[in-house]
Amino acid sequence: MSLERLRTLVGEIYDLERVGFLLAWDMETTMPPDAALARAEQRATIGRAAHERLVSDELGRLLEELRGEEESLPYESDEASLIRVVRRDHEKACRVPAELRAELLREGALGHGAWLEARERRDFEVLRPHFERLLELKRRYVDCFEPAAEPYDVLLDDYERGFTTAETEHVLEHLKRELVPLVEAAREADGDELEGPFPVEGQRAFSVDLLERLGSDSRSWRLDHSEHPFTASLGIADIRLTSHFRETHLGGIFAAIHEFGHGLYERQISPSLARTPLAAGASAALHESQSRMWENLVGRGRAFWRFAYDDLRRALPGLRDVEPDRFFRAVNRIRPSLTRVDADEITYNLHIVLRFELERELLTGRLEPRDLPDAFDERMHAYLGVDVPDARAGVLQDIHWADAGFGYFPTYSLGNVMSVQIWEKACADLGDLDARIERGDFADLREWLREHLHRHGRKLTPRETLVRAAGSEIDPEPYVRYLKGKLGEVAGVAVS
Amino acid sequence: MSLERLRTLVGEIYDLERVGFLLAWDMETTMPPDAALARAEQRATIGRAAHERLVSDELGRLLEELRGEEESLPYESDEASLIRVVRRDHEKACRVPAELRAELLREGALGHGAWLEARERRDFEVLRPHFERLLELKRRYVDCFEPAAEPYDVLLDDYERGFTTAETEHVLEHLKRELVPLVEAAREADGDELEGPFPVEGQRAFSVDLLERLGSDSRSWRLDHSEHPFTASLGIADIRLTSHFRETHLGGIFAAIHEFGHGLYERQISPSLARTPLAAGASAALHESQSRMWENLVGRGRAFWRFAYDDLRRALPGLRDVEPDRFFRAVNRIRPSLTRVDADEITYNLHIVLRFELERELLTGRLEPRDLPDAFDERMHAYLGVDVPDARAGVLQDIHWADAGFGYFPTYSLGNVMSVQIWEKACADLGDLDARIERGDFADLREWLREHLHRHGRKLTPRETLVRAAGSEIDPEPYVRYLKGKLGEVAGVAVS
Repeated sequence: MSLERLRTLVGEIYDLERVGFLLAWDMETTMPPDAALARAEQRATIGRAAHERLVSDELGRLLEELRGEEESLPYESDEASLIRVVRRDHEKACRVPAELRAELLREGALGHGAWLEARERRDFEVLRPHFERLLELKRRYVDCFEPAAEPYDVLLDDYERGFTTAETEHVLEHLKRELVPLVEAAREADGDELEGPFPVEGQRAFSVDLLERLGSDSRSWRLDHSEHPFTASLGIADIRLTSHFRETHLGGIFAAIHEFGHGLYERQISPSLARTPLAAGASAALHESQSRMWENLVGRGRAFWRFAYDDLRRALPGLRDVEPDRFFRAVNRIRPSLTRVDADEITYNLHIVLRFELERELLTGRLEPRDLPDAFDERMHAYLGVDVPDARAGVLQDIHWADAGFGYFPTYSLGNVMSVQIWEKACADLGDLDARIERGDFADLREWLREHLHRHGRKLTPRETLVRAAGSEIDPEPYVRYLKGKLGEVAGVAVS
Repeated sequence: MSLERLRTLVGEIYDLERVGFLLAWDMETTMPPDAALARAEQRATIGRAAHERLVSDELGRLLEELRGEEESLPYESDEASLIRVVRRDHEKACRVPAELRAELLREGALGHGAWLEARERRDFEVLRPHFERLLELKRRYVDCFEPAAEPYDVLLDDYERGFTTAETEHVLEHLKRELVPLVEAAREADGDELEGPFPVEGQRAFSVDLLERLGSDSRSWRLDHSEHPFTASLGIADIRLTSHFRETHLGGIFAAIHEFGHGLYERQISPSLARTPLAAGASAALHESQSRMWENLVGRGRAFWRFAYDDLRRALPGLRDVEPDRFFRAVNRIRPSLTRVDADEITYNLHIVLRFELERELLTGRLEPRDLPDAFDERMHAYLGVDVPDARAGVLQDIHWADAGFGYFPTYSLGNVMSVQIWEKACADLGDLDARIERGDFADLREWLREHLHRHGRKLTPRETLVRAAGSEIDPEPYVRYLKGKLGEVAGVAVS
């Protein structure tokens, strides 16, 4: 009886959350611009309705009543998992006073506006008052929870439950140590770029066909246009990818493959978890492990382009004279650059290391916001050898810091690391994946991912989920090995 | 203080309602088909969240506290109107027990499925058990309210607040008496049809341009495709029209103009009413008066095609050899046909008369559901001279009866009647509209409609709103006069 009522309540919370995703998806893909104000109100109302249910006394009582049932059931049963995960969500949500939550939302919205203006004027000082206030609010947020080894643990836990700052630091320090020297090596072996234009319609048509070959179908998937590519899962059978195709480069195709990885994760969650808070990816990093796996390990591999290059050339006849090997090297080109979202596989992680370090220092007060732009520029030079021309291209490049998103950045690199751990396990289990990929057969890989990772949804913790899929705890070494191999292959640089 | 809290509460109700519209719009235009089940849950959850707020004790208390304030303020002030209209919505909603409401929703959903199957099998018997249950539930619904002159009054009030069955009957009987003979006259003068194909892309491009000339803009309007055309207003600045262009006829263009009329009504509601339940059309009939006015009085007029026909021919070169006069007569052709939604201006109303009569007889028990198909077919023959080949083309043609929508049909004809009353008043105030229309100038008409009708939203009752716009209570005579004139012009039939 209590369990049934719990299912009803969390079903509503799940519906409201996904409706919120539709409001966001529609805003980015479809909505007429003058509807922005009304849309902000709608999103706030839906968010409040979901939050009210999550912190409700009724939910708290139900969870108490269900303690016995939870303990009597196997840990991995749908029911015990549901009670356990909802309890944790409820307890976390209850710790934050409504007033602080509202202030964070409000200041985040103001920060977003200030960020746009600061970018326009290429001046961090425009954002700084909001940034300082957000930092202060985030400190108050941290204080709502049990003291952790360091404050950053609390923020990280929102995206990567149970992961500590210390182990994240261990992984990122390892990447920094290994990758900074690789950047130097790559610079010396820099090859040439593909020359456009690449007609947008050809890229879109190619991507639509490709996504179908990878495993999407029009009964439950869509591909639309948005300024920044993203995936919205409005339900297990309502997976919406977006990309942005540009004439000047092929990034939109890789973005579509990347988003397919996110989409497939959501699509392959066990139907028995539908309409519960378990019907989502286990964590931000595990989600990213899937998008990165499809984008890079599948989509930037030689085998993949043996399968797909003829089709691409048909869609983009301008590639007629570009030999496959040159194409492969061009789409895997390693070169330090200013912008995180455009970075190659190796340098991407250094953008993350830098942001992770700065966030921690800001949170503990070792770094003052006023000193942030200089610190950002200095580290861009030190880790990437890149000189930042102005704040817009530098410290103001991402939205996350204007949006109360502290703690999110490291999950990108954790996801990269996990992607290779999981990939290697899949290869060990399935045998030669390259041969399958070369003939456009992705079914075994999809099924393996479903069985070992996707179907669990949020049942297990991120750590448990990773161990289940990869057979080991997080370990940056396979990823570093993979990157070195890639660099050797692409740039002819031998790295030990 | 109470008023502020009222605004907050009804703002949330409004948000939830409009989010519900987005869920419906997306379902009809965009959603992948396998998402249907999840979408049904989402819509139910949003509907419940809105309803809970509307019937909440808090809202009831607030409305009590605000009685003094309401009485001290002018009747037409935003504040007094808000309190008055919300009170009525609250009281109506509170009268229906949650259980009955849920049963109506559930049986409506089941009825929808059964309707699809019954259509497939062309057999009303498949729908009948649901139909009987819905009828019974609707009788229980009627019993929740104060006894009215007849039960149908209660159903009509949901769409046309304050309008009685008696006055609706008066209007529809008048139409029947006047129009049945016209159908005969038209049949004898039947002219020829336009011959396609009319390429869909040409129709769409023409319609997009046309909507802009009429007064839409891409900052707050969209035009999309759906099976059945409709308008969703997701906010005063988020107006979404749909149409369905087909190669075989030009109905999609007229549907786009029709939906523009609905959209303009919502777009021109006073911004001071935004995010309140007053930010909507005054009634179903008044809404229809606006869509019909733009579709028929503007869009099927000679002046309009003097303005637009060159553009249409450019978009559809197949019309090259169709002289303007022949085009005008063809798009105004009067001919009895089986299907309500495809009917011409005159016979449309007889489809409505028939349904209105049958609904009333069913509700009072004078007609048994098992006898409905025969009664439907008999009246189709009697009023329209049309023989119904099977139930799919006959009694199963509309969704409304499978969906608990009794009481809605008559508002279509009431809207037709109102459209001419309002149009004549606009012409009297503005002088020659034809000259403006012929040069593509719709601004004065839009402004007149804003000032005299649209801006009021739901502040006033439908009756008050009509009197404000048209200067008189409902009166079918201007509409009949207009139809006779149209028939004379199109078919060369002199009618007195």
